[in-house]
Amino acid sequence: MPGGAGVRRPDHQTTTQAPADLTAEAVLAPYLRAQAADFLRSLRLHREHSAPTDPGARGAEEAVSALRRSARRISGSLHTFRSVLDPVWADQLRTELAWLSGTLAREHAYSTRLVRLLDALHRLSGAALPPARAGGSATASPPTAPGSSPGAASGPSSGASGQERAALGVGAARAGALLERQLTLARTRAHSAALQALGSSRFHAVADAVALLASEVPLATGNAAPVSEALLEPAERAEQRLLGAVAALPPDESAEPYNEAQDAPWHQARLLLRLHRYAHEVVLGAPDPVLAGAGQALDLHRDAAEAASAAAAAARTPRIAPATAYALGVLHADQRHGVEAARGAFREAWPYAAAVTAP
Amino acid sequence: MPGGAGVRRPDHQTTTQAPADLTAEAVLAPYLRAQAADFLRSLRLHREHSAPTDPGARGAEEAVSALRRSARRISGSLHTFRSVLDPVWADQLRTELAWLSGTLAREHAYSTRLVRLLDALHRLSGAALPPARAGGSATASPPTAPGSSPGAASGPSSGASGQERAALGVGAARAGALLERQLTLARTRAHSAALQALGSSRFHAVADAVALLASEVPLATGNAAPVSEALLEPAERAEQRLLGAVAALPPDESAEPYNEAQDAPWHQARLLLRLHRYAHEVVLGAPDPVLAGAGQALDLHRDAAEAASAAAAAARTPRIAPATAYALGVLHADQRHGVEAARGAFREAWPYAAAVTAP
Repeated sequence: MPGGAGVRRPDHQTTTQAPADLTAEAVLAPYLRAQAADFLRSLRLHREHSAPTDPGARGAEEAVSALRRSARRISGSLHTFRSVLDPVWADQLRTELAWLSGTLAREHAYSTRLVRLLDALHRLSGAALPPARAGGSATASPPTAPGSSPGAASGPSSGASGQERAALGVGAARAGALLERQLTLARTRAHSAALQALGSSRFHAVADAVALLASEVPLATGNAAPVSEALLEPAERAEQRLLGAVAALPPDESAEPYNEAQDAPWHQARLLLRLHRYAHEVVLGAPDPVLAGAGQALDLHRDAAEAASAAAAAARTPRIAPATAYALGVLHADQRHGVEAARGAFREAWPYAAAVTAP
Repeated sequence: MPGGAGVRRPDHQTTTQAPADLTAEAVLAPYLRAQAADFLRSLRLHREHSAPTDPGARGAEEAVSALRRSARRISGSLHTFRSVLDPVWADQLRTELAWLSGTLAREHAYSTRLVRLLDALHRLSGAALPPARAGGSATASPPTAPGSSPGAASGPSSGASGQERAALGVGAARAGALLERQLTLARTRAHSAALQALGSSRFHAVADAVALLASEVPLATGNAAPVSEALLEPAERAEQRLLGAVAALPPDESAEPYNEAQDAPWHQARLLLRLHRYAHEVVLGAPDPVLAGAGQALDLHRDAAEAASAAAAAARTPRIAPATAYALGVLHADQRHGVEAARGAFREAWPYAAAVTAP
């Protein structure tokens, strides 16, 4: 954290005050109240867009996304600044927000994973296929295949290179159709689960707790401690956990794109960077773009790793054609190289993020 | 080419002479005679190692490799310095040496391709498999599978990640066995073809022509022209062709690892770099290590591209299991990333090679 001099009020006033002048309550409570208000606003928006008269599925999606955004920030702050808050209340609300975030995140995750994989297949087979023949032969191209031009029945390919391309084209179309079936089904299930969660009494209890938070933040006794003690110390602990996790990441030399066992410490670093970002946001009153950039690299890492897993999972579908399995193998390797690229991007961004972090 | 000041006699004497003092014959003829002598020495070595009493297959391989080395240099020099030589003789011998080199190269190519692919499979499945389970289940691991530890029957994998690894392990073992069968068969056929070629009357005619070359180089009329005209100009043309080919290589931004259509200009650059290297060797009397380094990157490019093609070809084998096809897809993508890495290595080496090239 930069020294106390730059600490601003989280309610976006531009007045700069020394931390000793502010109580922890005066910094944390407005942040939590603002996030709670955002949460409730998103909830209202979602209800409006989910009404049978409203055709806007996109509006409902955006509302859920905003809801998750606030839930993550409230939950992260409850975690990092637990010592400033009523601990029983904080732990309970955090558990419930984690359940809610997790449930609501799934639909979006399946949806973006499908788009990511279909884009990659399109790129892989598009690059390997001459434009006129994209999509392979008519018999092998299912109607749901992405980017296929129907009826482009290709004659026998000339030479190994032509055969190679056609093989990937046919398999890529089939793999795309398979992934679309599997991930659309998973997304539909996640959508139902999210709607069910949003209508549950468990959710109404969370919404009530957040509504309460919007008006009053339950603080621990002795909440009049200055920011320097009550907030900067926990924020610094969050920062230290992140620095430790990044330092413990497997070195580049040992990086093997196909070694999924190395993903876990990276996923852990992503979660710790997020907690650190939110703590930074609480203390400094605004998000930091450099930390956000480093976070995006780790988000991409997670997306590529999960897309690779989805390709591998699809390849375990019984009775698929070898051409389909082959394309899924290519796709898996491609996404694992995406994992490696995201690691590289994070390593490049990290020195700047670490400079933001350590004054 | 560096200016004439550094031109040395090709017979490795350290005396430095200005090019005007030397005739083209005095530079080119000793080079060709030396290469022809190497060719004949390798041929003798091959005959010794191929005798029924000699068990040394390795010695025979090395002799063939040395034979190809001389054949490439003679052939390249006949091409570049055609204007200095008897053109009918040069064209004819060059055609015959190209036939010989091509025939002899195949066995080695299949052999190194198999090693490269099995190593990659081992690395890919080794990284993804915990050591105790390497090779997958006993039923799925054929006896010829590379790096498999027999009898390591794995129980049901725990979780998606475990399944993912086991899937790649089983498929990798089968893919390895398939590639071993296919490339060993191809190598055996190439070996027979090479032995047949070395026993053919066509080969004896080539050997006779090279034996003649070892004592006398058939020059064009007017062979007393100074080096600066007769050798430097053709050498510079070879250099210009290379510079043009490298400048015309598809830019990095458009590089798509799976775009096999972009391989051809790179293969062409490899051949032109080789011709340039040999011309440089003739004129300066010794190979240049920087040019050799750049050439190695292009050799790796060719090896990775051909290995990727072999993986794709194996995936077109009828009735293979989806797990095998999947592993071949991963392997294909891995080798294509090897192609991309080799292009990167060449791009890094090129400025130094270009600096050697252009004075």
